[in-house]
Parts: sequence; structure tokens; C-alpha cells
Amino acid sequence: MSDQQRRDRRLPDQLRAVRFEAGVLSHAPGSVLAHFGNTKVVCTATLEPGVPRFLLHSGKGWLTAEYGMLPGSTNKRSSREAVAGRQSGRTMEIQRLIGRSLRMSTDLARLGENTLRVDCDVIEADGGTRTAAISGACIAVSLALRQSVPDAFVGLVGSVSVGIRDGQALLDLDYEEDSSCDTDMNVVAMEHKGFIELQGTAERTPFSRSELIDAIELAEKGIREISCLQREALSR
Amino acid sequence: MSDQQRRDRRLPDQLRAVRFEAGVLSHAPGSVLAHFGNTKVVCTATLEPGVPRFLLHSGKGWLTAEYGMLPGSTNKRSSREAVAGRQSGRTMEIQRLIGRSLRMSTDLARLGENTLRVDCDVIEADGGTRTAAISGACIAVSLALRQSVPDAFVGLVGSVSVGIRDGQALLDLDYEEDSSCDTDMNVVAMEHKGFIELQGTAERTPFSRSELIDAIELAEKGIREISCLQREALSR
Amino acid sequence: MSDQQRRDRRLPDQLRAVRFEAGVLSHAPGSVLAHFGNTKVVCTATLEPGVPRFLLHSGKGWLTAEYGMLPGSTNKRSSREAVAGRQSGRTMEIQRLIGRSLRMSTDLARLGENTLRVDCDVIEADGGTRTAAISGACIAVSLALRQSVPDAFVGLVGSVSVGIRDGQALLDLDYEEDSSCDTDMNVVAMEHKGFIELQGTAERTPFSRSELIDAIELAEKGIREISCLQREALSR
Amino acid sequence: MSDQQRRDRRLPDQLRAVRFEAGVLSHAPGSVLAHFGNTKVVCTATLEPGVPRFLLHSGKGWLTAEYGMLPGSTNKRSSREAVAGRQSGRTMEIQRLIGRSLRMSTDLARLGENTLRVDCDVIEADGGTRTAAISGACIAVSLALRQSVPDAFVGLVGSVSVGIRDGQALLDLDYEEDSSCDTDMNVVAMEHKGFIELQGTAERTPFSRSELIDAIELAEKGIREISCLQREALSR
Amino acid sequence: MSDQQRRDRRLPDQLRAVRFEAGVLSHAPGSVLAHFGNTKVVCTATLEPGVPRFLLHSGKGWLTAEYGMLPGSTNKRSSREAVAGRQSGRTMEIQRLIGRSLRMSTDLARLGENTLRVDCDVIEADGGTRTAAISGACIAVSLALRQSVPDAFVGLVGSVSVGIRDGQALLDLDYEEDSSCDTDMNVVAMEHKGFIELQGTAERTPFSRSELIDAIELAEKGIREISCLQREALSR
Amino acid sequence: MSDQQRRDRRLPDQLRAVRFEAGVLSHAPGSVLAHFGNTKVVCTATLEPGVPRFLLHSGKGWLTAEYGMLPGSTNKRSSREAVAGRQSGRTMEIQRLIGRSLRMSTDLARLGENTLRVDCDVIEADGGTRTAAISGACIAVSLALRQSVPDAFVGLVGSVSVGIRDGQALLDLDYEEDSSCDTDMNVVAMEHKGFIELQGTAERTPFSRSELIDAIELAEKGIREISCLQREALSR
Repeated sequence: MSDQQRRDRRLPDQLRAVRFEAGVLSHAPGSVLAHFGNTKVVCTATLEPGVPRFLLHSGKGWLTAEYGMLPGSTNKRSSREAVAGRQSGRTMEIQRLIGRSLRMSTDLARLGENTLRVDCDVIEADGGTRTAAISGACIAVSLALRQSVPDAFVGLVGSVSVGIRDGQALLDLDYEEDSSCDTDMNVVAMEHKGFIELQGTAERTPFSRSELIDAIELAEKGIREISCLQREALSR
Repeated sequence: MSDQQRRDRRLPDQLRAVRFEAGVLSHAPGSVLAHFGNTKVVCTATLEPGVPRFLLHSGKGWLTAEYGMLPGSTNKRSSREAVAGRQSGRTMEIQRLIGRSLRMSTDLARLGENTLRVDCDVIEADGGTRTAAISGACIAVSLALRQSVPDAFVGLVGSVSVGIRDGQALLDLDYEEDSSCDTDMNVVAMEHKGFIELQGTAERTPFSRSELIDAIELAEKGIREISCLQREALSR
Repeated sequence: MSDQQRRDRRLPDQLRAVRFEAGVLSHAPGSVLAHFGNTKVVCTATLEPGVPRFLLHSGKGWLTAEYGMLPGSTNKRSSREAVAGRQSGRTMEIQRLIGRSLRMSTDLARLGENTLRVDCDVIEADGGTRTAAISGACIAVSLALRQSVPDAFVGLVGSVSVGIRDGQALLDLDYEEDSSCDTDMNVVAMEHKGFIELQGTAERTPFSRSELIDAIELAEKGIREISCLQREALSR
Repeated sequence: MSDQQRRDRRLPDQLRAVRFEAGVLSHAPGSVLAHFGNTKVVCTATLEPGVPRFLLHSGKGWLTAEYGMLPGSTNKRSSREAVAGRQSGRTMEIQRLIGRSLRMSTDLARLGENTLRVDCDVIEADGGTRTAAISGACIAVSLALRQSVPDAFVGLVGSVSVGIRDGQALLDLDYEEDSSCDTDMNVVAMEHKGFIELQGTAERTPFSRSELIDAIELAEKGIREISCLQREALSR
Repeated sequence: MSDQQRRDRRLPDQLRAVRFEAGVLSHAPGSVLAHFGNTKVVCTATLEPGVPRFLLHSGKGWLTAEYGMLPGSTNKRSSREAVAGRQSGRTMEIQRLIGRSLRMSTDLARLGENTLRVDCDVIEADGGTRTAAISGACIAVSLALRQSVPDAFVGLVGSVSVGIRDGQALLDLDYEEDSSCDTDMNVVAMEHKGFIELQGTAERTPFSRSELIDAIELAEKGIREISCLQREALSR
Repeated sequence: MSDQQRRDRRLPDQLRAVRFEAGVLSHAPGSVLAHFGNTKVVCTATLEPGVPRFLLHSGKGWLTAEYGMLPGSTNKRSSREAVAGRQSGRTMEIQRLIGRSLRMSTDLARLGENTLRVDCDVIEADGGTRTAAISGACIAVSLALRQSVPDAFVGLVGSVSVGIRDGQALLDLDYEEDSSCDTDMNVVAMEHKGFIELQGTAERTPFSRSELIDAIELAEKGIREISCLQREALSR
């Protein structure tokens, strides 16, 4: 497969334009607008007193995430979950993934019995909303902790998607690519440390061990670049 | 009371910086980011086939609105209604107001059996979210109709709040002013035509007929200015 | 427009037969059956220990209201909200209005950390259920406080609707009138003190400032008469 | 046990003052206010086109009942199920009982694919709300059918409670008696035909076969008297 | 009617093959798999600290039951209540019956402020799931108490259904019989003590006093046999 | 790390006792009781007419899965989701995984507009419930299709978990092992074809590419063995 097959002329191992704008909201202590191409996610992090019941009197803190999409963010208006009265399975799956991933970036013992609440709301969706959410929210977490418990931030967590199409691995899929790949993978990793989450799904045909390894390598490269952009946003 | 008593040095009859950015999202046919000072609301309008049951076989269309706030939009994180499993009474009240107001801007008979779905999502809240939502969403409606049923757009609808503090009417309250006024009023009007909605609430002490008339006049002036800004945004 | 145009031969400034029966239920400390023509609403008020979270340790009390309609109260059976599993937006809007209005009749600081719970249930609906509810429930509140914290009752709150039809203001609309007016307004006022709530909605055509003033004057007259009837019911 | 042991001096086999006011509401085709002592239940019956899915294309109709209590109907305010977002198990159990019982009074095949909707709402509760509801609602059903499908009414269904206290059967318990009986039984029967429902519950100690037989006989007597009062209400 | 009319050649007064397997699960302190013919119900009982609000500081305990059916347990797949978001009226009715019945088997005062939680889940349904659930769960309760508060177990509670078909009483109905009987009765009794619950429903035609008495006698016989089988399971 | 470190003396690459009992329920066309050690899951598959809205008029079928746990299946009683009124995020995540995995085993185009409904209910939980569910349910799907659309079954799908503890990969974790591993991975594969799903989560420390590869190899081996056991169960 040749490179020009990507609609937007990207190379197989090339990220979309990724950008993190920190401090976009005035109220939340940590706020970031994450861009992965046309995908835009507002991420905020807030520290609140108290922990879930299972941590009461443990002296330890917690981090939890919620995810949502504006109804107008998708190419066909998506229904508002607050009106439906329940979050969809997809939403639940994504926000659990975001929460698990970001808990690795935080030393919960140092938080005391407080909870970091992370919110990721998709303003515009063009594939990769969960990876943009994780990557952006990690910056928001870092900013929120900087104000209150700076030594509780353990390390940067970044995320990217990889697809396999006709045996070739492609980095950071947009919506159309995502729909046409045989396999879709979301990878989360911690800077300099290794993988945190790996979710691969065969959409059309099963994938082989070697395809998996190719995809993983591409993801590692992508997340390294994302980590640099995260650092930059934090240093501004 | 003298003018300098407004925190931000505005005159009593002065709007905050009001700005409408049209076309901010790529998917929805009508999209607007409305700014009323620090208040920012994303408004979209989408035309979908079908009508609610009570209009089936009537040949007429419908317009309905939904409203939400990002959890990080308020100074204390607000809980996510999709997680709570129900919209609050305040949310319901506001989205019903938006819907009723915008239905006056549209000739529903010309829509055919289609529904204009309006979504207003508050990204940042500093008072006046419902008036920003109505004013911005009316532009989104106009844009969405322009693409499909241009002659169904009847006229511009704008909205502003007025407060009464120590007997003086103040235009376009921010969050702090809103909290300190004796009376809080939200006014919706149609350009050149008159009032559509008027909701006044005494927060501390009852208000008199003459205070009401003062407030109404101030609102008329404010909405005239908002209509100009709406026109401008539409002509760009 | 001449007076005989009202179906029931009322003058434009004439209330329907309004009647308040106090003490109709044996359990609730305050109970009233309010009649506005054929509209009948059972209103009760009960004082319970405790306050919502936001008032804990404030030493102040609260008043909150709930509203419902019996399924058989309307000309077409309305569905039961308990079965639907949620209150409608209309119900929420109305009970919030009732609560806000009645809080002005009560000195919450004198309640201590107790909550006045007001329930308004429509047995028969023929227009004006919210104004009948507010007017009747205020008597129930007064009765409930008389037993426990008599000096917490601050003053009588009454409410009436006004419509504008072909430019003429009409007092206290029944269901058919309500459906045929250009503008529908609900006004709440406190005896001798002024307006508490004003909600006007253009149903067909926008309304002008002078129409608004006419309507307001009519409402003031109507609420004065309702206050007299409330006093009477309380003195029996 | 001697007769004077009933608080209200009734004989063991004596009903409370039972009264049925038919036609109390103007909208529903069948409406009844049923009094069993201080217990007051508004019962309405409405015929609506359509049937539940399992009867589609069967040519047969259906009858279904819903039950509710006004929050102020009980001696301690009961919470509003529409706010809680679900009907309680007790409510479900009662409305299923009402529905099953009344379906025996109706020839569903003659209804065509229409549904009789029965609503029973307790205005004041002093024991026996379900028996008052069944007895009153049967009249409402008869009235509603009289207007539309008179030959679908099959026969009168009446209901009463019986308690067993210290081995003695007591007819038609009020709230206090209900709380102090060893066994509480609700019996539904069809005039001249026999039993439809029998629900007996030992509250404190198990009951014997002979106690059961005594209770059943008392119920038969009570329901015969109720049938007379139902006939009377229908003939007015 | 002659005996051979039962599909499975049982005599009218004959139980199906009833069997209780105790200790089938490793986690719950009391667990039983109850078989009534092809009906199979997993019953567990667990003692948890705490009581419902109405028993706080009473020093007394509580017993509560929940009931469910696996979607594949019925001959047509039944929908999963967790997905529907609410338990059906039938489920609520049954679990309330189970709870009431088993509370008679337990001396709640001896439990202290602890709650016995009983779960009955139907793996396969062929009529009589509630009677199998009660009979099996009583063994689970006894086992759970044996470990912790042995003297709180008061006595065995058993349950069986009886039907009336063409005037003849039939013991322990399977699904097909249940569907074809004129009257369906569920009886709960306590060993050597008498009846606890009796729920009879005329499905087609009303039943007479003598039919009721026949049915009751049959149920007594059936429950005596069930009690023996319960004892046996407990002594193993 | 030496082999004896597994509590149950298994080798690192050794499955627990895995067993599939087909045909355990009489109603569902496909039913299996899957044992993975002490973990027991009842799996059923039923073919129902109709498809979700997005497939209407496509001529294609669908497969969807639901998952649940009996409250008594876990070592601490888990709450019943039907009572809570919503499925947890974990449940949703698992049932989505089961559905996606099994859709690969079925040629949906050959189903016509019918839906295969798969239910997996955990009777006893000791780790690996989702892998037991997928492996067992695939047999149920095959059995259900065999009766109706035999050529729609495409191939066997099996699943197993792998953990990484102190750098060593361990196959098929029980509950205790699952809680003590650094990384937990669930792998789904299709016999002779390759991977379908891969979900790896670092619980304590990030994992490396080589650890991932070790784990994947172990999973492949485990699933090969599971496929044999699935074949066997199907051939009986």
C-alpha cells in the first residue's frame, strides 16, 4: 500500500495536526482544548474533597472521569444522553478507559481523601475522541495538581489510535479511516515507562500477531510525539 | 445609584461584549458560538425528518430545543445530567423557553413534517446563559434554514436579561450581579415586532409596576443592539 | 371587542368563581381545596425536619413545592408521571414557580432547619391550574405555620392569569380562552407589596409594551380580589 | 372479644360508612368518588383506542388500572412517586390487583381493540384504599361502558377487607385496626357469582383454616352490602 | 374429572418431583438450588450489617428478598430487567411475597441491626417459580442463620400452588396447567403453625367457598410434604 | 518465578479445568453451562425476528449480547442491577465485548432480518467471567444456528485471560491471581484465523512490548485448547 492512500496525504506513521490549548476555561483549575485534526475535546480537571465509599478512611484519593459528546459534534446529530436518561455503553466504556489511564499518572496516596474529577466533552468529532480526551485530560490533571498537590503528578500519559488496513498499520485514524480499517486499536502509554492500556478490535477480519506488533510500534512512536506536545503545552 | 457601581464599569444600560461566531462546527448546518461577556454557548441547529406524534399528518413542522452545561463551565463543577439520569428542573425550564422563543422565528407550516433541533451547550457560564443561548441559536436556525427552506425564517429573535437593584434597572447581568439583584428578568423579543417572552422573578423584595416598565425599556434597547450584532454575524 | 365575547359572559376584568375550602384533609396540617371556576386543586403544606444540603448548618429553613395532575383531570386522559418515571418539563416549570412564589410568603430564617413541603394536585383542570395552586397553597402554608411557627408567615401571595386577545386584556382565563389568546400571562403578587413573578408568553403574535401594562393592571386588580378571598378562608 | 372493642363502636360485621358519588369529574366518561369511612378515592375510567402489543390483531380489548396516593393523603406525608421516578412495589401490587379484578367485570371481546384505562387516586387514606378503589372503579367502568359499549359490562365487582384479631374476624378495617390485626385479608367478589381474588397475609401469627372460613363469610356479607350501594349509585 | 387428565399422569394431590440441593454456591453462606419439576431456582441468603432507615436504632433486624428470572429461563426469551431499567410489577409482587413469607421464619429481634438478604433467581421456569423460591430460600435462610445467629430461626416456611379446574383442585401446577386453570392459588404455610399467605385469583370464572376450602386442604397436604423435604436437605 | 507460585499449583501456561455442558436448559435453542475452574456461566442464544433500526430493510441480521451476575455469585453479595435501575459500566463494557466477539462467528448476511440474542449470566464468579462467557456463548450460538440457519455459523471464537506478574505471563487467572497481577489481559481469537479482541490493562505498572508478546503467545495456546473443548461439546 502506498502512502498517498490516506485521504489527507499523511504518511502511515504521521499524526494529524495535534494541538493542546491549556487554560481555556476560567473556572476549572485545569482546562485544555485538545485538537487531533478536526477532533476537538474540552478537558477539565477539578479536585474535590471526599472519595467514593470504598476508599473512606483509607487516607487515599481517587480520580474519576466522565465523557460526553455535544449533540452537534457528530456528522449526524447524536442524541443527548441527559434526555435519554442514561449514558450509552460506548460512553461508559470510554470514560472508564479515561479514568483507568489517568489514574496511572497520579499518585493517589498523595492526594489525601480527595477526588480528581476529569471531564472530557467532545465539541467536534472526527475520529480518535478517546485518545484526544486522554492526552488532553492528562495535561488538565497536571495543571490542577500543580495548584494544589504538585508532587502527586507521576508522569505524562498519552494515547493514540492505530488502524490496520490491508495489512498496513496507520497512525491516528480520522473518522473515515476508522470506518474502513480491518482492525482498530487504541493504545495508551506512559512517557518512558511503557503501555498502560491496549484495546484492539477486529472490525472485519482477525489480525495476526505480526500485525499487532507493527501496530504497537507505530503507537509507541505516535505517543512519543504526543508527549512532546503535552510537555510544550505545560511549559507555556 | 451611580454608574460606577457595576463591577466592570459598565453603564446601567450597557451590554457586555456580545459576539456571535457563525459556522464554528463543521457538521451541523447551523452553528454559532455566542459570547455574552465571559459566557460562551455553542448553539447548533439541525433539520431532521419527522415530527412529534401530535403533529403527524398535519403537514406542519416543529422546532425543539435542548440545553446543557459542561460540568466545568461553572465556578463550582456542576454534576453531569447524563450521569444523574435526568435533566434538572432548571434545565427543562430553560430549554422550554428557548424552544418557545425560537418557534416564533420560524414559519412551521413551511417546514413540512420536519423538525428543527436546536442544541445550546454552555462552555463557560457567567450569567445570562439562556439569553446568550436564544440569541445565538436564532442565528443557527437562520443558517440551517438558509440551506434548506430559506423562506421559513420569519424574523430575528433576541434576548437579554435585566436586573433591578435598589430601584435601578441594569442591563445584561453577569453572574455576580445576577446574585445580588432584587429582581431578575429575562426578556425575549422579535426584531421590529415586540415581546415574545417575559419572565421576571423577585429574588428579595417584590417589584413595582414602574420598576417593571423601566426594566422593559432597558431590555428593548439591549435587544435592538443584539439584533444588529445578529444581522452582522449572518451577513458575514 | 365587547364583553359578551367571553363564553361564560364574564366581563374582561372579572374573575371566575374563586373559592378556597380550608381544612379539607385530616392529616396534613395545612390543606385547601382551591376552586377557580371548574379548576380544582388540592393543596397541602407540611413542616418536616431537615433542609436540603445547601442549607445544612445555616440555621435557616426551606420551602419546596411539588405539582401533579390526576390522569382523569384533563379532557383527554393525561399519562401518569409516576408510570413514565419522570416529571414532564411543564410540571417541573410549574412546581418551581410555585416554590419560588411561596418562599416570599415565609420568613425562612424563622423556620429553623425545617422544610415546608407544599403539594398541589389538580383534581380537575380547566385553565389556571398554576395560579389556583399558588393561591390555594399560600393558605395551606399559612395554616401549617399557624400551628408551629406563626410568626414565620410574612404575607399573602396570590396569583392569576391574564390573556391578551385581539389587543384586549382578559382576566383569569379558562382552558378554552387560554387556547385562543395571543398572549398568556401568569402573574404572582404579594398583598400590598408588589409583583413577585411575571411570566408572559406570546402564543401567536408578539405583544407590545402597552398591552403588557394593560395586562399587569388587570392582574393587580384580580389578585387584590383573590387576597380578600384568601383572608376570608383563613378567618373561618 | 366484645363488639365495643372497635374504636368506632362498629360491630365486627359492620362496614364503615360507604358511599359512592358518581360523575364527580366533568372530563372522564366514568368518575366516582368512593368513601369507605375517612378513606376517599377518586376513580375514573376512560376508553382509549388501541391495545397492548400482545393483543394486537386479536380483535379483543383490554382493561388496565393505575393507582396512586396524593402525598398529603397519609398521616405522615408520603413521597411523590413521580419525583422518585418509580412506582413502589406496593403501588404496583395494588394496581395489578385492581386491574385483574375489574377485567372480570368486563367482556373484553366486546370492547374491540380498545383499552379501558382505570385510575384510582387516593385523596385521603384511612385503611382499605385498595378495596375502596376496586369498588368505586367498578362503577366508573360501568358508567364509561354505558356511553360506548353498554353490553360489555358483565357484572358488579366489589371488595372489602377483613382482619383477624385474637381469633375474631372484623369487617372493613380502618388504618388503626389494620395495624393491630394478626391477619389482614382483602377479598374481591362478583355479585351473585363468587370470589375473584383473595389475598390473606399473616402479620403476626399464622392463621388457621377455620379462621380463614370465618373471614371469608364476613367478606361475603360485606361485599353483598357494597354491591347494593354500587347499584344505588349507578341508578341515580 | 379423572386423575389421568394431568399431562404428566400425576394424581390431583401429587407434587411434582421436588428436590432441594443445599450449598450449591461457594460464596453465599446459605445457598440452595430448588427443583419443582422442571422449575429450577437458585436461592441464596446473606447476612449484612445495617437495616433500612425505619428500623435504625430499633435494635431489630430485617429480612428482604429480591427475585429475578434469567432471560433464557422462559419458553419465549424474557427481557432483562436490568436493561429495561426497572423491575416489572410481577417481579415486585413476587419478591414482596417472598420477603413477607420468610420474615415469619426469622426472629428479627434476635438478628440485631443486620439484614438478611435473600435472592431467588429462576434458571428455568415451568410454573410455580414463586413457591419454589419461598421453599428453597427458607432453607438458605436457615443455613445462613446457622452460621451466625442460629437461635433466630423460628420455623420452616413452605409454599405450593393449587389450581381449580372444572371444580377439581390440583396440587403444584406446571406452566401448562397454570395456564388452563380457572383459579390459581399460591399458599404459604409454616410447619405445624398454619397459613402465612394465601393468594387466590380467578382467571376465568369466580370460585366458590367450597372450592376454596378444597384447595386449601390440598395445599396443606403439599406443604407438609415440602417441609419434610426441607428438613431432609437441612440435615444432610 | 517458579511454577509452584500459582495457588492451585497450575503451571503458568495451564488452563483451569474448563468444561462446557451443552443443552442445560430446555427452552432456549442454544444453552451452555461454561465452567472455567469455579467460574460458572449460563449462556443462551435465541433467534428472534427483527433487527435494530439501523439495519431495517438491509436484509441483514444482528447479534447482540447481555451479561449479568447473580447477586450471590460473588464473594461479597453484589447488588442487583434491575433494582438499581441501570447496568453498571463494567457490565456494559463486558456485554459489548461479548457481542462484538460473537458477531465474528456469525455471517450476519445469512441470518436475514433476525437477531441472535445472547445472554450470559454468571452463577458463580472466580475470575475470567467474560472469557468463560464468550467461550460458552459461542457454543450456544452454534447450537441455535444449527437448528435454523446452519450455514450462518462461520467459526469458533474462544477467549482466555492472561496476567503478567513480576514479568511472567500466567494463563487463565482466577479471582485472586487477577487481583495480584501487574497487568491483566483478555484475549479473544477465532480458531485458525487470528485475534479478534485484545484488551490489556496495566493495574500497577506499565507493561513492555516483550511482556505483551509473551502474553499473546500464552493466550494463543490457551485458546487453541479451548477450541478443542468447544468442538467436543458441540459434537456430543
